[in-house]
Amino acid sequence: MTEERKISMNVIRRLPRYYRYLGELLQKGVTKISSRELSEKMNVTASQIRQDLNNFGGFGQQGYGYNVEYLHTEIGKILGLHQNYKMIIVGVGNLGQAIANSTSFSKRGFKLIGLFDVNPRLIGMSIHGVEVQDIDKMEQFVKENEVEIAILTMPKTRVKETAESLAKWGIKGLWNFSPVDLFVPDTVQVENVHLSHSLMTLAYKINEAEVEREKKDKSESIGQIEE
Amino acid sequence: MTEERKISMNVIRRLPRYYRYLGELLQKGVTKISSRELSEKMNVTASQIRQDLNNFGGFGQQGYGYNVEYLHTEIGKILGLHQNYKMIIVGVGNLGQAIANSTSFSKRGFKLIGLFDVNPRLIGMSIHGVEVQDIDKMEQFVKENEVEIAILTMPKTRVKETAESLAKWGIKGLWNFSPVDLFVPDTVQVENVHLSHSLMTLAYKINEAEVEREKKDKSESIGQIEE
Repeated sequence: MTEERKISMNVIRRLPRYYRYLGELLQKGVTKISSRELSEKMNVTASQIRQDLNNFGGFGQQGYGYNVEYLHTEIGKILGLHQNYKMIIVGVGNLGQAIANSTSFSKRGFKLIGLFDVNPRLIGMSIHGVEVQDIDKMEQFVKENEVEIAILTMPKTRVKETAESLAKWGIKGLWNFSPVDLFVPDTVQVENVHLSHSLMTLAYKINEAEVEREKKDKSESIGQIEE
Repeated sequence: MTEERKISMNVIRRLPRYYRYLGELLQKGVTKISSRELSEKMNVTASQIRQDLNNFGGFGQQGYGYNVEYLHTEIGKILGLHQNYKMIIVGVGNLGQAIANSTSFSKRGFKLIGLFDVNPRLIGMSIHGVEVQDIDKMEQFVKENEVEIAILTMPKTRVKETAESLAKWGIKGLWNFSPVDLFVPDTVQVENVHLSHSLMTLAYKINEAEVEREKKDKSESIGQIEE
């Protein structure tokens, strides 16, 4: 690991996938794997894998392949998964409940310790032993429990002011599901899940594939006429 | 628009954000905007904006700026939003319900026409006038209605076989929320929303910011000692 370790976010965004695959291999008792085997499993080129992992000093030994457990642990460290994170969910509608009900996060050290909403019908309800509290109690809770991550699954109308308050109260990361861009102090990291952007990207891919198919059909039919 | 229009997915993934901002400007009655103004609003550099939009032939006139409505329409066309898409949701748990309840998709031409689940407690329930049906009825429904997009919000254990079936039945796009990579024929486009990947990326950002802060503190305290 060198002094200069600024790695492009494109590489970083590929790491969770490596981490997931290596975790699955570990569970199956696989102890080592070549970049070729990993590439076949993951459907990326072996050279892409070597390039990505070289950003962090390699991990591989020529002719031996990768030690699965070591690689899994090291990628976990790079991703910051060697520590636990205390999380709260702000907005316990369907999406908030879906996330609260997902047990896979807590296995990776993301501990859900608080749920907050304004809706009296939700306040008092429990999900996996965590009670939904009135949003008025959030400031005290965040400060007392040193909450690190807030998951914003609330209506977009109130998300900007909520993010600003959370930043003031010392939150370190916001996982934002609202179709709004948050501009917060650089003490707070933001990761957006913009569902509508993802759906539009799917529309692009569908449309593009159709355009390509039409082009191909056209050139083939021209080819037939010429024959 | 030239013959060769293969644009990198990095650029494509930025387009929905332009589309959203331009839509907001339109609603406010703004008819033209300079790349500098748009860059301030979106917190990206003006040169990034010009570069991105030049991929599609520019749209801008020197010294005049961009025509908001024209740019909005053209980006919409590139994203394939000039046509409607018929969608179904497979798996009507919390996440499926959250998506079914979101009205913003239908405004952009994504029409939800079917909901499917295996759970008898959910079958018969209606969301925005769409009834949850038994998954056994999905094949006929997809074929009869020429469904284009299936949203997979089901448990990961059954997602691979479901994706394969949907591909056979003529679906064009899968919006996959399971932590599984789908390998389907190239007649089907896949867009993944891997929530756990996004959360790990947030952990990386938090961890990286801390490392940077510690480095800075260290170099500052060394500076003080030397004074």
